[in-house]
Amino acid sequence: MADQRSSTPTDSGTATEVGWLSPEQLELVRAHVPLVYVDAIPVRVDEAGRVTHLGLLLRMAADGSISRMVVSGRVRFGERVRDAVLRHLEKDLGPMALPRIPPEVTPFTVVEYFPDPDRSGFHDPRHHAVSLAFLVPVAGDCHPTQEALELTWLTPAEASEPATRREMTGGQDRLLQLALAHVGLLP
Amino acid sequence: MADQRSSTPTDSGTATEVGWLSPEQLELVRAHVPLVYVDAIPVRVDEAGRVTHLGLLLRMAADGSISRMVVSGRVRFGERVRDAVLRHLEKDLGPMALPRIPPEVTPFTVVEYFPDPDRSGFHDPRHHAVSLAFLVPVAGDCHPTQEALELTWLTPAEASEPATRREMTGGQDRLLQLALAHVGLLP
Amino acid sequence: MADQRSSTPTDSGTATEVGWLSPEQLELVRAHVPLVYVDAIPVRVDEAGRVTHLGLLLRMAADGSISRMVVSGRVRFGERVRDAVLRHLEKDLGPMALPRIPPEVTPFTVVEYFPDPDRSGFHDPRHHAVSLAFLVPVAGDCHPTQEALELTWLTPAEASEPATRREMTGGQDRLLQLALAHVGLLP
Amino acid sequence: MADQRSSTPTDSGTATEVGWLSPEQLELVRAHVPLVYVDAIPVRVDEAGRVTHLGLLLRMAADGSISRMVVSGRVRFGERVRDAVLRHLEKDLGPMALPRIPPEVTPFTVVEYFPDPDRSGFHDPRHHAVSLAFLVPVAGDCHPTQEALELTWLTPAEASEPATRREMTGGQDRLLQLALAHVGLLP
Repeated sequence: MADQRSSTPTDSGTATEVGWLSPEQLELVRAHVPLVYVDAIPVRVDEAGRVTHLGLLLRMAADGSISRMVVSGRVRFGERVRDAVLRHLEKDLGPMALPRIPPEVTPFTVVEYFPDPDRSGFHDPRHHAVSLAFLVPVAGDCHPTQEALELTWLTPAEASEPATRREMTGGQDRLLQLALAHVGLLP
Repeated sequence: MADQRSSTPTDSGTATEVGWLSPEQLELVRAHVPLVYVDAIPVRVDEAGRVTHLGLLLRMAADGSISRMVVSGRVRFGERVRDAVLRHLEKDLGPMALPRIPPEVTPFTVVEYFPDPDRSGFHDPRHHAVSLAFLVPVAGDCHPTQEALELTWLTPAEASEPATRREMTGGQDRLLQLALAHVGLLP
Repeated sequence: MADQRSSTPTDSGTATEVGWLSPEQLELVRAHVPLVYVDAIPVRVDEAGRVTHLGLLLRMAADGSISRMVVSGRVRFGERVRDAVLRHLEKDLGPMALPRIPPEVTPFTVVEYFPDPDRSGFHDPRHHAVSLAFLVPVAGDCHPTQEALELTWLTPAEASEPATRREMTGGQDRLLQLALAHVGLLP
Repeated sequence: MADQRSSTPTDSGTATEVGWLSPEQLELVRAHVPLVYVDAIPVRVDEAGRVTHLGLLLRMAADGSISRMVVSGRVRFGERVRDAVLRHLEKDLGPMALPRIPPEVTPFTVVEYFPDPDRSGFHDPRHHAVSLAFLVPVAGDCHPTQEALELTWLTPAEASEPATRREMTGGQDRLLQLALAHVGLLP
């Protein structure tokens, strides 16, 4: 494990999600304190800033299901929140995505993930995480890395369809609705 | 005046700020209802979205003083707020500024300008205006139009210096401080 | 008309919505500039600030339909936005409602009402209005004035039901969904 | 230590700030992951929601200095953010403070505390914490608990005076300025 971790310093996978900790230490942390997370919803915008499309990754969720998901990950010890947002976007969308991290420090919503699915409606079986969620326009070419099966761009209307929502687990569909509300595009 | 207005349908100047109205009608409106305005603060950002510079125009303010100012203007009848932000940025910074209008609908602050300078600390001798203020990253080349004497890019630290603040009238210096607070860069 | 206006100095009705203006002047203003409005959604909260109920008035909407509606009205010349919110809440909910106007200056959303129902999805046949929308906890007894037929308190779940949404016209149902998103209670 | 902890299950002091963990476990957590915190700034408001006073505790800061401070503390494993805000307010201001936790889920700013004082300007020598900051009107009688030497109510103008700012360490003065900006009262 130590070798694997040292060879993946960029926190590229779930296995090293809480890097620099042994599996036992990781278990201890996850059992005792909420983790700091960021969620980033990649969007395409027109010249007046209107959201035209939202990007969703198809990948294995923390609960083992295959789900459409936004970009998400842990904030590391010593890391600024905005640097964590940039790191996870580059990791999941590739180096040519050209994300435009927003200048403000406040997230558009705060998502509280709990091991208990009924606690807040946002579910992560691994831990309690408090996640700062940002909407991030991306201007470049997105090439999802090997962990994701697919990246799909949906219009706001498509993102609100029941069929789309059923493909999202753990509350990811609700997060998407909150994002649409933030940009005034909730149906 | 009528000729001039009809030749400048894009609302390019203070003289036609409330276009399509005769001077008498304009006076009537200004004396009876608050106007809807937008303020836009052009900023330069780094790849993680940190504000590195704020852009200030040097121009004649509504009270006749020469002041460093942000981009500001009226929302027209029938116009969406974000289209007004884009229009005023292009008008004041030129067609190559490439502003990145934020996707959200909420302003970072609401500025209430009054003819009475003591009413809110934000002053416009011409009218009562309620202005939605946005921070807008601009990526391109800015060429201020003839109405502005100069466009200056200041670091957040420079923008908070007393000497800079004294060059701003009508509460524009306070607006800049509110913008810095929004991005966490208030000294 | 002058008599009627002077007898209703508190702007208590649609007829004097744009007070101190003759009907002709009112028409002029409405045809040429967007008006500044506020929307206020009365809510009941528990001790941790969770929204337990949202208050909706049953009244005649601007388009003549009977609709469930939030509190809404114009900002007057010379009036601060927060004073307008307080005035309209007291007017519509009675003097014992004890509204707790939020300390922040930013609305949770900005609603753009247009005479054209397709322009933004928010519709007012009378005019173009830009409305700052606030969520306002009310702690006291609410007694809607004569203009409203009824005040109903709905749970967040009830407020999202299709049957409830069908009782709201002009986009009021979407405004309610945006409010629920703001407090994290969107289904 | 175990006895002390079990006798203070309500997380009433710095010593048990990360409850249910042995000192060794606490050290491990603090050295490896950022902690989730909340900051709450108690304010007095008038009937239109204007902030008239801000409450500051005089107490020993994490760096051992005596500082004027806002209410602050950790979010526990399994705890909702708003419940943590309520718990810390009641702990620090007493059971009669009647805090009005805001209904929205988003903080007015996010404060990143680091062991390195130069990393963000917000300093906590004990750990890296990401804190969600809320402004909370309090309506009742505040009786600070024994940990605080004093609770002082300052006007917005007083809170911005250099003399006041010098009595605050670790960036608490900047947090107060961000709060004033949020309510439009930054000088």
